[in-house]
Amino acid sequence: MRVVHSAEVAAQPVEEEGARNTTVRWLISRPEGAPNFAMRLFELAPGGCTPLHEHPWEHEVFVLDGRADVVQDSGPTPIAPGDAVLMLPGERHQFRNTANAPARMLCMIPLPEEA
Amino acid sequence: MRVVHSAEVAAQPVEEEGARNTTVRWLISRPEGAPNFAMRLFELAPGGCTPLHEHPWEHEVFVLDGRADVVQDSGPTPIAPGDAVLMLPGERHQFRNTANAPARMLCMIPLPEEA
Repeated sequence: MRVVHSAEVAAQPVEEEGARNTTVRWLISRPEGAPNFAMRLFELAPGGCTPLHEHPWEHEVFVLDGRADVVQDSGPTPIAPGDAVLMLPGERHQFRNTANAPARMLCMIPLPEEA
Repeated sequence: MRVVHSAEVAAQPVEEEGARNTTVRWLISRPEGAPNFAMRLFELAPGGCTPLHEHPWEHEVFVLDGRADVVQDSGPTPIAPGDAVLMLPGERHQFRNTANAPARMLCMIPLPEEA
């Protein structure tokens, strides 16, 4: 077993093009021994967003704090604490903080097969 | 994309032998279209616990509220909100609420291969 408190994990800026004022903490991933999927904690400062992008793997997101929109080609969907979001592989999406406080969410993704 | 609020998902009693005063909400799983892993929300009432058991898949847990112990053969480890726990396949474990308020935690597990 491995236990880590979120605050002990370094917050790295999300530097993909289109991201703004957003950090990610990799809480559980391959280096910790995760066999199948990773747990990350995203924090979007006010005005922050993740890139508008798509990829061939799913997201499973749980909103912890704050208010945000999930932006898709069909428009924005507001999300709030306690919401669980399944973003399917290939769906174009962006998360945008819509409030004046940080928005925090867990985001789980499958790990790629080991080489 | 699929968004569901935790409170809209039915809380089912955990009925495995050894479980007490504990419910589970399956927030995201195969029926919602999850390809690889499931997101469940456990709530342990005061005095509640999950079974002391082991299984050949991992847990990835994030503590939302309350105070609990993870009990293993080596003894108890206290966990609190913001903690991320990786329980490896085959590790014997039990979660026990140690306070007078509910303990809530997300628990992600890999989905079995489809038949």
